[in-house]
Amino acid sequence: MSIADAPAIAALNPPRRVLLGPGPSPVDDRVLRSMAAPLVGHLDPIFVRTMDEVQELLRYVFETNNRLTMPISGTGSAGMEAAVANLLEPGEEIVICINGYFGERMHEMALRVGAKPVRVECEWGGPVDLEKTRKAWRDSNAKVLFAVHAETSTGVLQSLEPLREIADERDGFLMVDAVTSIGAHSIGIDRNRIDACYAGTQKALSCPPGLAPVTFSDRAVAKIKARTTPVGSWYLDTNLLTAYWADASGGTGGGARAYHHTAPISMNYALHEALRIVAEEGLEARAKRHQRNHQALVAGVEAMGLAMAVAPEHRLWTLNAVSIPEGVDDMKVRSRLLNEFNIEVGGGLGIFKGKVWRVGLMGAGSTENNVLLLLGALEKCLKDEGYKPKDSGVSAAAAFYAAN
Amino acid sequence: MSIADAPAIAALNPPRRVLLGPGPSPVDDRVLRSMAAPLVGHLDPIFVRTMDEVQELLRYVFETNNRLTMPISGTGSAGMEAAVANLLEPGEEIVICINGYFGERMHEMALRVGAKPVRVECEWGGPVDLEKTRKAWRDSNAKVLFAVHAETSTGVLQSLEPLREIADERDGFLMVDAVTSIGAHSIGIDRNRIDACYAGTQKALSCPPGLAPVTFSDRAVAKIKARTTPVGSWYLDTNLLTAYWADASGGTGGGARAYHHTAPISMNYALHEALRIVAEEGLEARAKRHQRNHQALVAGVEAMGLAMAVAPEHRLWTLNAVSIPEGVDDMKVRSRLLNEFNIEVGGGLGIFKGKVWRVGLMGAGSTENNVLLLLGALEKCLKDEGYKPKDSGVSAAAAFYAAN
Repeated sequence: MSIADAPAIAALNPPRRVLLGPGPSPVDDRVLRSMAAPLVGHLDPIFVRTMDEVQELLRYVFETNNRLTMPISGTGSAGMEAAVANLLEPGEEIVICINGYFGERMHEMALRVGAKPVRVECEWGGPVDLEKTRKAWRDSNAKVLFAVHAETSTGVLQSLEPLREIADERDGFLMVDAVTSIGAHSIGIDRNRIDACYAGTQKALSCPPGLAPVTFSDRAVAKIKARTTPVGSWYLDTNLLTAYWADASGGTGGGARAYHHTAPISMNYALHEALRIVAEEGLEARAKRHQRNHQALVAGVEAMGLAMAVAPEHRLWTLNAVSIPEGVDDMKVRSRLLNEFNIEVGGGLGIFKGKVWRVGLMGAGSTENNVLLLLGALEKCLKDEGYKPKDSGVSAAAAFYAAN
Repeated sequence: MSIADAPAIAALNPPRRVLLGPGPSPVDDRVLRSMAAPLVGHLDPIFVRTMDEVQELLRYVFETNNRLTMPISGTGSAGMEAAVANLLEPGEEIVICINGYFGERMHEMALRVGAKPVRVECEWGGPVDLEKTRKAWRDSNAKVLFAVHAETSTGVLQSLEPLREIADERDGFLMVDAVTSIGAHSIGIDRNRIDACYAGTQKALSCPPGLAPVTFSDRAVAKIKARTTPVGSWYLDTNLLTAYWADASGGTGGGARAYHHTAPISMNYALHEALRIVAEEGLEARAKRHQRNHQALVAGVEAMGLAMAVAPEHRLWTLNAVSIPEGVDDMKVRSRLLNEFNIEVGGGLGIFKGKVWRVGLMGAGSTENNVLLLLGALEKCLKDEGYKPKDSGVSAAAAFYAAN
C-alpha cells in the first residue's frame, strides 16, 4: 500500500448562527439531539415503525391521505427531480410557470429528463400570469401543469386554486413545489387536488437538509405505473421506492419492506422529531405564528423606509424579499450581519442578485426575538452605510407586536 | 384551512443495536455528537471550510489527488447513479462485470441512463472472470469497464490490477464500486488508475448513511466535459456540482462557491468527524484491524463446522458471508439474534437469499468484543436449532486473538 500521510484536521466547532436566510433555518435542540441517537438497521422493525410514523406525520403536514407520501433520500432538489422524472415521460409536454429561479430550475430539470417544457414567462416578484398559463395550457398537449407554491427566490406565494381550475380543463395533473411553504402556509394537497408535490425539510419544518418529502395522488401513481419507458433514475424511481416505503399493508404498518437503498437513518430520526414538533404546535397555530412575525418584520422594514419587493397580497410569510436601497453595498451589509451579529441573511438569486435581501423567518427561526434582533442589526448597518432610516424599524415592530 | 387532527406520535428511543449486518455499521459517539452541533448556512464561510476539509480527508481515504472528490448528497446508491449517469452517454457501451447483486444493480442503472451494458456473467461468491471480461471488452466498443471492488452481497474482494490491465488494452476508463471497501481495504485510486469510484459512508467509514463519496480522475472529468448530451440528472450532474464543491482556487480553499443545492449540513459534520477518526487511526492500521477481526471470525465460524461462502483468497474483511447450515431456519436465527441479543446480522440478497448470513465487521463494528459476542450468541441459537457445532467458535476466536 502506498498511502499518503493522514491530514491533521481539527474538530469542527460551528457557532450558533441566527439563520435568517433562505435555508437552512435554525433547528430546534430536540431535533439536533435526536440525531445523536444510536443507529438501527434500515430494515430493523424499529426503523420500519419510524418510517410509518414519518409518513403519517408527512400526510398531516401535506394535508393528504395519499398513500405514496414519503421522504426522498436527498435534499429538496432531489425531491424536485423525483417529481418530474417520475411523472413525465420523454417527449411529453409540460407547462411550466416561471416567475422565479425555481420555475427556471424545473424547466432545466424537465429538459434533462427528456420532457418538452412549455415556458410560461411571468414577472419575477409577482404571481403566475393566469391568462398566459391558460393560453399555454390550451395551446399545448401537456398533461402536467407545474407551478411553485412558494418562490424562494422572490418571496411570492402562489394561489393554487386557479391553477387547478386551468388543469381541470382537460383533466390535467397539477405538480407543485412546496419547499418554502410546507409547515407554514397551508398546502392542502387533497383540498387543492395537487397530483405531485415535493418539499424540503430545512425551511419551515426546521429539520436539517438531507431529505425531501414528496406526495403523489393515486391518479399520479396510476400515470407513473402506466409509463411506457422506465424512469431514467433508478435512485428516484417511485415504483421501486414504494416497495420500501409503502408497505404491503397499504401504509398502515406491518407489511414487508423490500430493500432498495440504505435510508439515511439519522436524518429520518431528525425528520420524525421535527414533524412531531409541528404536530404539537398544530398547523394552524404554526401558520399564524409565521404570519404574525412576517407582518412585524414588514412593519419594521417599511418604517425604516425600505420597500418589500413583493406586493402585500402575494407575500410569503417564510421568505421576505427586501429591496436593497440605492447606494447600499449588498455584500458589505450581509458580511457585517454575519461576522458582527452572527446573523445569516440571503442575497438575491438570478435577476434579483444584488437587488434584494432574502430574510427567512422559517420554522424555529420565526420568532419575535429574531425579528427585533434583525431589525436592530440591520438598522445599525444601514446607518453605517450612509442610509438614513425614516423611522426605527425596531420600534415599529415592537408596536406591531404590542397591538397584535 | 381544513386540517386533520395532528397525529400523536411518541418520541423515538432507538436501542443501541450491535450492528453486524451489511450496513449501517455502528457509529462512534463522537460522530453521533457531531450531528448535534448547530447548523450553519450552506454557503457560510465556516461550512465552505468544512467542505474543503471533507474533500481533503476523502482524498486521503481514496488515496488520490483527484480534484473532483466530494460527497454526493444522497446515499451510496446515489453515488452509484452519479458515476454511471455522468461517465456514460446514451447509446454508449459499458462492460459490466456481474458477480453479485451490485453488479446487477449497475446493469439496471446503466440501462436507465440509456447506456448499452454488455454483461459479463460471473459466478456469485467468486471474483470476476477475467477471461470472459477480456473477451467482452475486445468484442465491444465500450470505453468504460465496471466492476465491484467489494461485493456486499457475496463478501468477495476483487483485485483491481487485472481489470486495469484489460481496460488499458484500448485506453479505457475503469469504474469501481467501493461502497464496502472504503476505509478498510486499500482502494488506491491513483495507484490503480481508477477513473471513477463511488462509495457510501455507512460501512467501514462508520458514518450514518446519507452521503456518497465519489472521485473522478482528470481524464474522466474531461470525458464528462466533452459529452454531447447533457447528464440526465440535474441533481447528480458533476459539472454543476463542481461549481459548488471544487472551488475556483482548484480545491485549495478560498474560491467562490456557486449555489447548486442545499448540502446536508449535519451529514457533512458527521462525515468530517468520521473521516477524522479514520485519519487518526491511519488507513494501514485500520486495514490491519479489519483483517484481524475478520480472521478471528472465520476461525470461530469454521471451528463450529460452518463454511464461509467465499474461498479464502477472495474474502472481504468487512463483509463475511457464512453459509447457513442445512436444516437451520435463516429468519428464526436472525430474529433471535436481534430480539434476544440485540445483534443485527444480514440475510442473503438475490440468489444468496436464505443461503447465507452476511456478517459485517465494519468500521467501529470491527472489534474483538463484537466477534466474541456474535460467535457466542450464534453458537447458542444454532444449538437451539438442533445444529451441533463441531467445536466452540468462541474458544477458537479467543485462541486466534491470543496468537495474533
